[in-house]
Amino acid sequence: VGCSGFIFVPSATLTSLSAVTDTGMKRLALTDADKTVRDWFVEEAKGLGCNVTVDEMGNIFAVRPGTNPDLPPIYAGSHLDTQPTGGRYDGILGVMAGLEGLRVLQENDIQTNHPIGLVNWTSEEGARFPITMISSGVWAGVVPLEKAYASQDVGGSGVTVRSELERIGYLGARPATSEATPMAAHFELHIEQGPILENNQQKIGVVNGAQAYKWFTVEVKGRAAHTGTTPMDTRGDALLAAARMINHSNIVANKSGALASTGILTLEPGSVNVIPSHVRFSLDVRSKSDAIVTEVEQQLKRDFAAIAQGRDVEDCTPPSTRTLPMEVTWATDYHSPAVHFDKGCINAVRTSAAGVLGSSELFRDMTSGAGHDSVNTSKHVPTAMVFVPSKGGISHHPEEWTSDKDCSLGAAVLLHAMVRYDRG
Amino acid sequence: VGCSGFIFVPSATLTSLSAVTDTGMKRLALTDADKTVRDWFVEEAKGLGCNVTVDEMGNIFAVRPGTNPDLPPIYAGSHLDTQPTGGRYDGILGVMAGLEGLRVLQENDIQTNHPIGLVNWTSEEGARFPITMISSGVWAGVVPLEKAYASQDVGGSGVTVRSELERIGYLGARPATSEATPMAAHFELHIEQGPILENNQQKIGVVNGAQAYKWFTVEVKGRAAHTGTTPMDTRGDALLAAARMINHSNIVANKSGALASTGILTLEPGSVNVIPSHVRFSLDVRSKSDAIVTEVEQQLKRDFAAIAQGRDVEDCTPPSTRTLPMEVTWATDYHSPAVHFDKGCINAVRTSAAGVLGSSELFRDMTSGAGHDSVNTSKHVPTAMVFVPSKGGISHHPEEWTSDKDCSLGAAVLLHAMVRYDRG
Ligand SMILES: NC(=O)NCCC(=O)O
Ligand SMILES: NC(=O)NCCC(=O)O
Repeated sequence: VGCSGFIFVPSATLTSLSAVTDTGMKRLALTDADKTVRDWFVEEAKGLGCNVTVDEMGNIFAVRPGTNPDLPPIYAGSHLDTQPTGGRYDGILGVMAGLEGLRVLQENDIQTNHPIGLVNWTSEEGARFPITMISSGVWAGVVPLEKAYASQDVGGSGVTVRSELERIGYLGARPATSEATPMAAHFELHIEQGPILENNQQKIGVVNGAQAYKWFTVEVKGRAAHTGTTPMDTRGDALLAAARMINHSNIVANKSGALASTGILTLEPGSVNVIPSHVRFSLDVRSKSDAIVTEVEQQLKRDFAAIAQGRDVEDCTPPSTRTLPMEVTWATDYHSPAVHFDKGCINAVRTSAAGVLGSSELFRDMTSGAGHDSVNTSKHVPTAMVFVPSKGGISHHPEEWTSDKDCSLGAAVLLHAMVRYDRG
Repeated sequence: VGCSGFIFVPSATLTSLSAVTDTGMKRLALTDADKTVRDWFVEEAKGLGCNVTVDEMGNIFAVRPGTNPDLPPIYAGSHLDTQPTGGRYDGILGVMAGLEGLRVLQENDIQTNHPIGLVNWTSEEGARFPITMISSGVWAGVVPLEKAYASQDVGGSGVTVRSELERIGYLGARPATSEATPMAAHFELHIEQGPILENNQQKIGVVNGAQAYKWFTVEVKGRAAHTGTTPMDTRGDALLAAARMINHSNIVANKSGALASTGILTLEPGSVNVIPSHVRFSLDVRSKSDAIVTEVEQQLKRDFAAIAQGRDVEDCTPPSTRTLPMEVTWATDYHSPAVHFDKGCINAVRTSAAGVLGSSELFRDMTSGAGHDSVNTSKHVPTAMVFVPSKGGISHHPEEWTSDKDCSLGAAVLLHAMVRYDRG
């Protein structure tokens, strides 16, 4: 069966997956729910004639043999964990489409030169253990194993990645490294998680790379005081300062065409009639350009210091609102520089999209807004990604949705790209 | 012993109280710590020859008999509970000075016409159960008993005022009403909790009344979305909107000479890479004028709605930062209109201040910035307050401090005013 003659038919599994639109998915990494889906994944993959192995980060590798035993596998890969208010597509689609691809190869008795593999990367979301793409990160050597193992549940229960891997029976023996588990290439189908494909009425994104992002924790220290007896101009109101910083970060990011977002904010002491003395908030800055991320960071560091001192910045804070001088400190929690995927893999995806879709108006080159396991694999092996539309651009939300049709098209492009890459 | 001849000597209790400056006090209402100080208070008062009774809100009334059994008592009163990061003076000074006054009367065998009473009002701060002056409020008929009983711990443990009163053994049988526990007058010594006396190098504030205040909970509903894939102008970022509202409330309050403050802010879902969908924050608006509080409230209701729709308000939010329309709702949690104390009680305080201090430059008439139990008692009985300076104007903070000397002067003015009021 020639690659271009291959026709993808979505299976019942994939159809039922994409039929559920009225509720989301909460499957935090390494919980009992994660164990259940892992056990199911292992059984499915074995049923499709794959060898299944697990490494020391619980990454599960399913491999269907090729004709040339000297070649490393070409992998599809993504993740089965979700955000606490997640949808049913982010990560999951890429793994399901990989299984579907293996089924198509198996049922049609298609031989490949390379083995064809599928990997379920452990704990991509960083929602339960707060390091995103932690296990592809260990595999790629960008996250030290000890740091990954020691990462604790954000709920404060004290359990770690290592203790939870052990508890659910997915602490493998093989090192999580690109030497111990080599790959010829890594392809990842994922929902776009943004509105660009939908807004352009396109079906496939040929992902050329991922934007840079940097995560910070900003802390503002003011002075607790009584809200009723403390005149406005003798306050060190840490929340008012933080509010101005958040507003200002949005203004600065907009000017640079960057993104700046705050998803977490906590304060002390937390009483209606006490001016907050301490505020901590997260700041997530992103751009296609590493230089712009650095520029935004540097400008915000200068401007937040000015806001904490009550000096004027360009959000027009009027001089009437004087403040006691406050302290502001920054910590960098995560940095993912901009990534450019492999030209050969990108070409395989683009040519496959053209073949599957027919018209060049139905697909586009694009940059991923989010980090993905492919960002890590791209550091060691040729990598590219395939995006499909997300309804309303919604993701990390129960209403996340992609049509059956679009899921099928994405899975077809994924498999075609892998087979095309295999044929060289 | 004539009133003007009476000389106040601070006791060891009061001295040791005011000597502690290096640490604050955390005694949340109806906790075990509160039970401990209540038990101590009851023993002290009994030791000074008082009858001690407890009403259904756990208010503790200690009464030293007068010569005319038909007259209701003249009370000193304040509270022994504190903020989570409270100081050792707010409330506590008024109760300790009341005990000290009873001791002076007892040791010097001073007879009064009215009985002289001292009340420890339950849970004034509203820090644990979020209704301030809750128990003087029930006594005054401004807070329904059922509402007070049902008020829940802000920590979310599910315990209520009633269950905690029962647990610590302070759920009395007598109704908490001005009929069941009548008063001839109510005097309260309190720290100023602001900087006015200190800035004017004055020792006593003759408090003529309290400013109006209104507490709101504002809720903003946006849309959760991925921080990396959602363009800035297609977001419904509830935290960004809340940040603008908080900044804007400060600007509007400053223009009106009012106070506006946010002490609590919570958000959902709370993940670095998820745009917050829900934010709730407290808003505390104050002014000497009821009309100005209403004006600020009305303007903020209009402007917050505009901010939630991405329309421009005068904080210069630039039009580039467009937003999806969001919902904003307000709940009014508390309203304390402006209060004017009783002329007779105010005169008793002013004349006593003149007597104790000598020079009229050392005291001033003033308005309380904070609510106090006296705000509630003033609705039924002649009431006035005495303020002493707060170092740096700091309160609701461990560094809250008033000198021994100033505590003694305040206690002297309190007792003189009560005895003066008794003599008519
Ligand atoms: N795809 C995804 O949500 N990755 C998590 C890391 C990020 O926030 O970009
Ligand atoms: N004095 C005092 O802190 N009272 C609590 C009520 C208020 O916030 O004014």
